[in-house]
Amino acid sequence: MNTAPIIDLITIGDELLLGLTRNGHLTYLGEQLAFRGAAPNRNIVCRDEAGEIRRNFELAWRESEIVITTGGLGPTSDDRTRDIIAEVLGLELLYSQEVEDAIRERFRSFNSTMGVNNKKQAFYPAGADIIMNAQGTAPGLWLEKDGKLLIMLPGPPRELNPMFENQILPRLSAEGRLVDIAQIISFQTSGIGESSLELELDPILNPHKDINVAFCAHYGTVDVRLSSISGETSLADVQELAAQCIEKLDHHFLTHGIRGITPVVLDQLRDAGQTVAVAESCTGGMVGAAFTAIAGSSDVFQGGIITYTNQAKSELLGVPSELLEAYGAVSEQVAVAMAEGAREKLHSTWAISTTGVAGPGGGTPEKPVGMVFVGIAGPGVAFAKQLDLRGNRGIVRERTVNVALDILRRQLLK
Amino acid sequence: MNTAPIIDLITIGDELLLGLTRNGHLTYLGEQLAFRGAAPNRNIVCRDEAGEIRRNFELAWRESEIVITTGGLGPTSDDRTRDIIAEVLGLELLYSQEVEDAIRERFRSFNSTMGVNNKKQAFYPAGADIIMNAQGTAPGLWLEKDGKLLIMLPGPPRELNPMFENQILPRLSAEGRLVDIAQIISFQTSGIGESSLELELDPILNPHKDINVAFCAHYGTVDVRLSSISGETSLADVQELAAQCIEKLDHHFLTHGIRGITPVVLDQLRDAGQTVAVAESCTGGMVGAAFTAIAGSSDVFQGGIITYTNQAKSELLGVPSELLEAYGAVSEQVAVAMAEGAREKLHSTWAISTTGVAGPGGGTPEKPVGMVFVGIAGPGVAFAKQLDLRGNRGIVRERTVNVALDILRRQLLK
Repeated sequence: MNTAPIIDLITIGDELLLGLTRNGHLTYLGEQLAFRGAAPNRNIVCRDEAGEIRRNFELAWRESEIVITTGGLGPTSDDRTRDIIAEVLGLELLYSQEVEDAIRERFRSFNSTMGVNNKKQAFYPAGADIIMNAQGTAPGLWLEKDGKLLIMLPGPPRELNPMFENQILPRLSAEGRLVDIAQIISFQTSGIGESSLELELDPILNPHKDINVAFCAHYGTVDVRLSSISGETSLADVQELAAQCIEKLDHHFLTHGIRGITPVVLDQLRDAGQTVAVAESCTGGMVGAAFTAIAGSSDVFQGGIITYTNQAKSELLGVPSELLEAYGAVSEQVAVAMAEGAREKLHSTWAISTTGVAGPGGGTPEKPVGMVFVGIAGPGVAFAKQLDLRGNRGIVRERTVNVALDILRRQLLK
Repeated sequence: MNTAPIIDLITIGDELLLGLTRNGHLTYLGEQLAFRGAAPNRNIVCRDEAGEIRRNFELAWRESEIVITTGGLGPTSDDRTRDIIAEVLGLELLYSQEVEDAIRERFRSFNSTMGVNNKKQAFYPAGADIIMNAQGTAPGLWLEKDGKLLIMLPGPPRELNPMFENQILPRLSAEGRLVDIAQIISFQTSGIGESSLELELDPILNPHKDINVAFCAHYGTVDVRLSSISGETSLADVQELAAQCIEKLDHHFLTHGIRGITPVVLDQLRDAGQTVAVAESCTGGMVGAAFTAIAGSSDVFQGGIITYTNQAKSELLGVPSELLEAYGAVSEQVAVAMAEGAREKLHSTWAISTTGVAGPGGGTPEKPVGMVFVGIAGPGVAFAKQLDLRGNRGIVRERTVNVALDILRRQLLK
């Protein structure tokens, strides 16, 4: 078995240290590399100040085999990574006409012209390979020196992520720097909490001391990852254990790999030749946004109605005003009527609805913050489920979306 | 004026490097400290392996004035931070009966008994002050040695956060280690790109070499942060520069601080006693989700209609089918009709609409991926704006949301 290279990841940006932006690069690159058996050994988050970049790059270059940097390749004056690293490594900066042409062409395609400050993006340290950027102006760089490898990536995730997956990972793999099959078996569950899940799987996994089990919960779905700690348990044996877990979990099992619940539900509907619509109150469009985030959802998702007033619930979804008066907007009865209304108005096979008190205000003793009803209507089916959710407004809404999708998923399994 | 201490934050945990968990400690502690003028200078994310903790702690202790560690104080075998750091600093581990009693009492209050492995949590390096943990068993530690300060915090956020706010921050402040007002002036722009923004502000900021300018772009809005590098420029002078930038930016200026565009638009509408509704095609609910993410939006946001089919556009929004046939769903005409339809159906003062090709499929030579129309209808106003967006499906949709909100914002400024 290959031993993984020692990788230092340097993520550069004041906004990370000021707590303004999450360090998504660590999450993304960590996962991508871990799946190829080469998780970063360390991540240094450093300010985009010249002295700090120099100090931390020198440290990482000394102590690691591969250094990956993110950020600081843009056109503005606080983009200094390229210059400083060239200086530390004693490399001249050369000019690439090819890069300038690509940047110029990119601006032209927007009916715009290249700014004078973009010119600096066409410089690269002597000896580096230029990794063209399909999504932006800052090229990546790949530089081998002194038996070590430096990979410099642009900061914006929409540029970094495709560059990493399409250009960096394949090259790392071709050069034998990665382990060639996923060493981690992963699957997802839905509708079971992390603690219950752990108890459920314990009898299967506990006897296998070599197996590392990692859970990661996302407000309704949980990722499960199994891997061999020592590398001595074969992948086939890890897979066999995963299969036992999955069988035991039955309908709590969502999917192999980490796909998320929405693609699973869309596939179920597509396979059945069925469609879906939504009626949203407390989630305000989030269920629709989840469906439509997936490319190709338009053959299944018909649309939805967001009703944030009682009048809209009546007029647009046909919820009887007597129901609203008798039970209130946050009620089982209204949730069912909303789902039925959306199903009818949007001519869909199924509809799901949400209505609840997302907070922080608006709670009463009878209907406290976190009380949510999720409704479903379909062929011969119409009911709602009451949820009592904990957490802030964002969490209540996110959980509601996942429960709504899970209710439909379980109906479609029947 | 105080100069901020050099702070190294060491966050310990394999799950961070495997991309399984976001580094929320950095976001939380970064923000808390930045607001007190003492943002961390660096964050090292390190594996919970003894050699790695030792190596990185030694590095941070050498190079900083304050070292904050998170994690590794629990009862299990991979909780080694306390032991390793005591060893590095050459300090004996002492036993605290007070901590053991507190842990024992905590278990008793759950009708449970303290496990034998919790005993190790009662040990502390000689000379350290124990910071009692109101939310869990692992106490924090505060240790001054060699003119430096070490703060060790437990890993779970629900333990770390209150401990930091209620016990650590007040003590740092009382000891004069923090600056008492925010040293960074921040504001946001909307509808101007990062490069254009930099060029625009350059004449104002360039002469001030002591001023650090940081930009952070979010697909339509850009955060701008000004601060004094040396601490020599007074906050009032930084503020004065910010005011000059803001004046020059005119309607590109969005807000003081980092609030995001949605709260700004909701406030504009609330102040005018007006309401809004949405008609969404390519964003599929995201604009509604943005409005409703803000607590208290229900007095302004009426609801919306998500139409993912032509039939729904006609039936629910009243878009004439002749328009759909003549110009297609992705057109200026249909965007305007969608906005007008939503405004009428939801009885709102304003409505905004989105229709476009989010990709990756569905593009044609006439209507390529990234072509989006954003419509607006209001008192005496109805028009649409064509966008030609780059990026993947997620980016196209996110940018569309921000442009839609920005169009409304600019209308409301008139």
